[in-house]
Amino acid sequence: MNHPERDDELVFLPLGGSGEIGMNFNAYGYGPPDDRKWIVVDCGVLFGNEATTPGIELIVPDIKYLAERRENVLAIIATHAHEDHIGAIPYLWPRLRCPIYATPFTARIIEGKLDDAGLFAEAPVTRVPLGGTVSVGSFSVEYISITHSIPEPNGLAVRTPLGTVLHTGDWKLDPDPLLGEPTDSEAFRRLGDEGVLAMVCDSTNTLIGGESGSEAVLRDSLIELIGGLAGRIAVAAFSSNVARLDTVAKAARRYGRRVALVGRSMHKFTAAARSAGYLRDFPDLIDEAEAANLPPHKILYLCTGSQGEARAALTRIAANEHRHVRLGAGDAAIFSARIIPGNDLAIFDVQNRLSAQGVEIFSVESHFVHVSGHPCRDELEKMYAWARPRIAVPVHGERRHMASHASLARSLQVPEVAIPENGQVLRLAPGRVQVVDEVHFERIHIDGRILVNASEGVTRRRRSMGVGGFIGITIVVGKNGRPVADPILMFEGVPDAVHQPVCRAVFDCVRQHAPRRDDREALMEATRRAARRAAEKAWGKKPITRVEIVAI
Amino acid sequence: MNHPERDDELVFLPLGGSGEIGMNFNAYGYGPPDDRKWIVVDCGVLFGNEATTPGIELIVPDIKYLAERRENVLAIIATHAHEDHIGAIPYLWPRLRCPIYATPFTARIIEGKLDDAGLFAEAPVTRVPLGGTVSVGSFSVEYISITHSIPEPNGLAVRTPLGTVLHTGDWKLDPDPLLGEPTDSEAFRRLGDEGVLAMVCDSTNTLIGGESGSEAVLRDSLIELIGGLAGRIAVAAFSSNVARLDTVAKAARRYGRRVALVGRSMHKFTAAARSAGYLRDFPDLIDEAEAANLPPHKILYLCTGSQGEARAALTRIAANEHRHVRLGAGDAAIFSARIIPGNDLAIFDVQNRLSAQGVEIFSVESHFVHVSGHPCRDELEKMYAWARPRIAVPVHGERRHMASHASLARSLQVPEVAIPENGQVLRLAPGRVQVVDEVHFERIHIDGRILVNASEGVTRRRRSMGVGGFIGITIVVGKNGRPVADPILMFEGVPDAVHQPVCRAVFDCVRQHAPRRDDREALMEATRRAARRAAEKAWGKKPITRVEIVAI
Repeated sequence: MNHPERDDELVFLPLGGSGEIGMNFNAYGYGPPDDRKWIVVDCGVLFGNEATTPGIELIVPDIKYLAERRENVLAIIATHAHEDHIGAIPYLWPRLRCPIYATPFTARIIEGKLDDAGLFAEAPVTRVPLGGTVSVGSFSVEYISITHSIPEPNGLAVRTPLGTVLHTGDWKLDPDPLLGEPTDSEAFRRLGDEGVLAMVCDSTNTLIGGESGSEAVLRDSLIELIGGLAGRIAVAAFSSNVARLDTVAKAARRYGRRVALVGRSMHKFTAAARSAGYLRDFPDLIDEAEAANLPPHKILYLCTGSQGEARAALTRIAANEHRHVRLGAGDAAIFSARIIPGNDLAIFDVQNRLSAQGVEIFSVESHFVHVSGHPCRDELEKMYAWARPRIAVPVHGERRHMASHASLARSLQVPEVAIPENGQVLRLAPGRVQVVDEVHFERIHIDGRILVNASEGVTRRRRSMGVGGFIGITIVVGKNGRPVADPILMFEGVPDAVHQPVCRAVFDCVRQHAPRRDDREALMEATRRAARRAAEKAWGKKPITRVEIVAI
Repeated sequence: MNHPERDDELVFLPLGGSGEIGMNFNAYGYGPPDDRKWIVVDCGVLFGNEATTPGIELIVPDIKYLAERRENVLAIIATHAHEDHIGAIPYLWPRLRCPIYATPFTARIIEGKLDDAGLFAEAPVTRVPLGGTVSVGSFSVEYISITHSIPEPNGLAVRTPLGTVLHTGDWKLDPDPLLGEPTDSEAFRRLGDEGVLAMVCDSTNTLIGGESGSEAVLRDSLIELIGGLAGRIAVAAFSSNVARLDTVAKAARRYGRRVALVGRSMHKFTAAARSAGYLRDFPDLIDEAEAANLPPHKILYLCTGSQGEARAALTRIAANEHRHVRLGAGDAAIFSARIIPGNDLAIFDVQNRLSAQGVEIFSVESHFVHVSGHPCRDELEKMYAWARPRIAVPVHGERRHMASHASLARSLQVPEVAIPENGQVLRLAPGRVQVVDEVHFERIHIDGRILVNASEGVTRRRRSMGVGGFIGITIVVGKNGRPVADPILMFEGVPDAVHQPVCRAVFDCVRQHAPRRDDREALMEATRRAARRAAEKAWGKKPITRVEIVAI
């Protein structure tokens, strides 16, 4: 490692993941302030929500700042293959066009995404072996195996002439993860001995005491649960949680059940896992169509849909819309996943539909069917004890998680703690940690097939229409500017009882206004206000109202 | 009690509460099928949700069936004063116009609602003493004290010539409720000895093992928590949970803090409690404006907003929009309530805003700050052992809760178990329990100030606009039916990039279509389809699209 030049700085710039669990996008910059070289660690999506971002399934960060200096962006380095860490690559890579680095399983998943987006030939993905190192510019980035809820999760030791950052990625400490490497605790201890300038660390479970629990203990519980069931069994889990799929498949085999995968991403992730050398002991699968011919006690369906996603397998099964899979009285559905905030009503809706058909439900509310993939407080304490960073930088959390994480770090006597906001440039070295700059940051909504900056307000206006409906008014005027017919009104999402008072107010307004002057803007605004005022009086709400004038 | 006539039947008709936690509306009918007399037990609202019912705060049942035979509806009998049990009275009482019965605290809350609705003079509320009995028609309804999370919760023993129904209302078994009567377990045992035909029972917590826990144990925990805090403290709780308010106030007094109530309903419920004889030992309050002059360690704010409700006190405080109350670094906010499904994102949003201002957050996720008011499985088992009903009728739950409750009842050897659906007439006697009829049932949305039947689809269309936006098209045609100008298009909630392709498709369609024939309907439909097709091609979504033609 070279010595630092006089003006060199090491900075951290989050463009996502600070303030939300999702959309992880972290940039590290090195060099003098006017000529920093950057590496990007993770490039993920945030999932939208019908209540707050109606019609938006995915959100990605606006990385304009880095795109404008993309000749200085040396690499995207992925810690693991979860959507909130790599899902934005197909959307954002074209703005950076830099090399991508990942371990074999993650690389395979990224390549699948690039392929779907027609970018496979252009975007180079370099496979890094587990424990391998990526050297770009002044950065030397070592992959350190850790445990999480997907194959090949990694922490990164980001070494620079000004010090080493431990970027944990998503992690937990599972003494028996059942699949893949255990956490390389020795590596973290050694790193601590070597000296860690800053630890940039997962905050997801900082509110929860104790430990997240081991996949192996969960396996025993699931085996017992599955052994006690007589009818068809559907298990919903994240398809990326390959260890969980393996656990469930082993429980099925123990009781003579054949396993059918239901849902596209189940096939995608098991194939990727196999090609990366995992799932060697996975049982032979049966096609979902064939499975329907087996007696109920011989079937186990591994399904997508643990979050009540609209098009996922279990959701369609619950709605009786699945082509091959039916569940009914005597059957069971196991939801082997947490309830992600914002998804509760959708999940419960699926469970209620299944319940109404006589399917017994097993979920985290009532049974031990899931362990988290993120570190609870005892695990965080261990990691801090190993790494002994000079600076703690909580990321990967909402503000409440990051604040709690910061308190924990302070209580563990970490000398400096910084809670960064998306878009803040945090100088980690030299000197005390400090925000030295703020760059453009906002969210981009993936709206259907179109990328729309959140600040344009398209989604916000849809949300307003969801609450208060829409009124459209067209006024036809002649050459003299006078209306030649009654205005045309359109109401959508407005109760019938509101239509007449609004029409009357609009007609009156147009009639009174037009003869006085032909100022179109004034007529439009007066009409709009008359309509909204009348709606508020009749209804208590002000619909979004648009007025157009056509001259003939 | 008279003997039953030959054709007499006792039936149960839920018009809410079966399939949802909320909107409790239960009718019991007695008499021959063509001339049943009815009593209504509870008349509550369901809270809407921005994701599934945007713009709707309250939902009530359509009680058309009972309204059409209102001369046979003898009474509304309220078990307790929660919104989901009495909140619909102002909306539905005018359709029934029957006497209302309630214990003193509940009566006071109902009267306040009737007063707000201008119905106080018309709607008679009869106060029933605790343990009292209401006799109407063939029904004799005895109030039995129980514990819950509000003053004066009651189970009802509904006695008829064909047997007794135990209608539990909302309940838990709290050995030390801190306020009001403990559960009258002797009364439930005696009722069991006397013989219970059916138990209609709360299903909220059937998924949860063990017991819900005592308010007294929680008090110790809250006192300890509050004792350890140095700055301002804001506690958010349901204002109807008067015992909780008392607990918090006592903890405040212990540490020399003055209590200020923040939020309108805090004042409403403490006043009602005092007028009904509770809170005799409640400390003197300080006005929220005056409290700002005290040093931080001398203040405790009792706030509305535990569910992140938009206009509640703590929500406004978090947004820095409250007139008198400010929180900041060193202060603490305690959320002493459960996270009701569907409210999580709103609650977390408030917590994140407070966190960002340096306020420390204490909530059910991380601390013992709440006990539920509903019975967990051990409590349900006790009640079944006391009452020993012949028929178990789970209500007050989603389908998954009711199904779990039904399984529990079967495991306890209850001979008959019936899961009713809203609108089903369930014959409880004579003979085996059976659905004998199905009556009109649907939900009514309180939309602003207007009541709209859900089946009209106004809310559904708003939800669709939330997802896919709106396109309005006006075509001006002359006497010959030919367009005299380009069509006028309005887009709302549709990304800019979609406008041009849609305009082009609409212009082309109108140009090609009009000369051929002047069939307005066909032109409108063709235009609508052209617009939606073009939007789908450009965007992947089909907006709600309306076309109007104006002839000049």
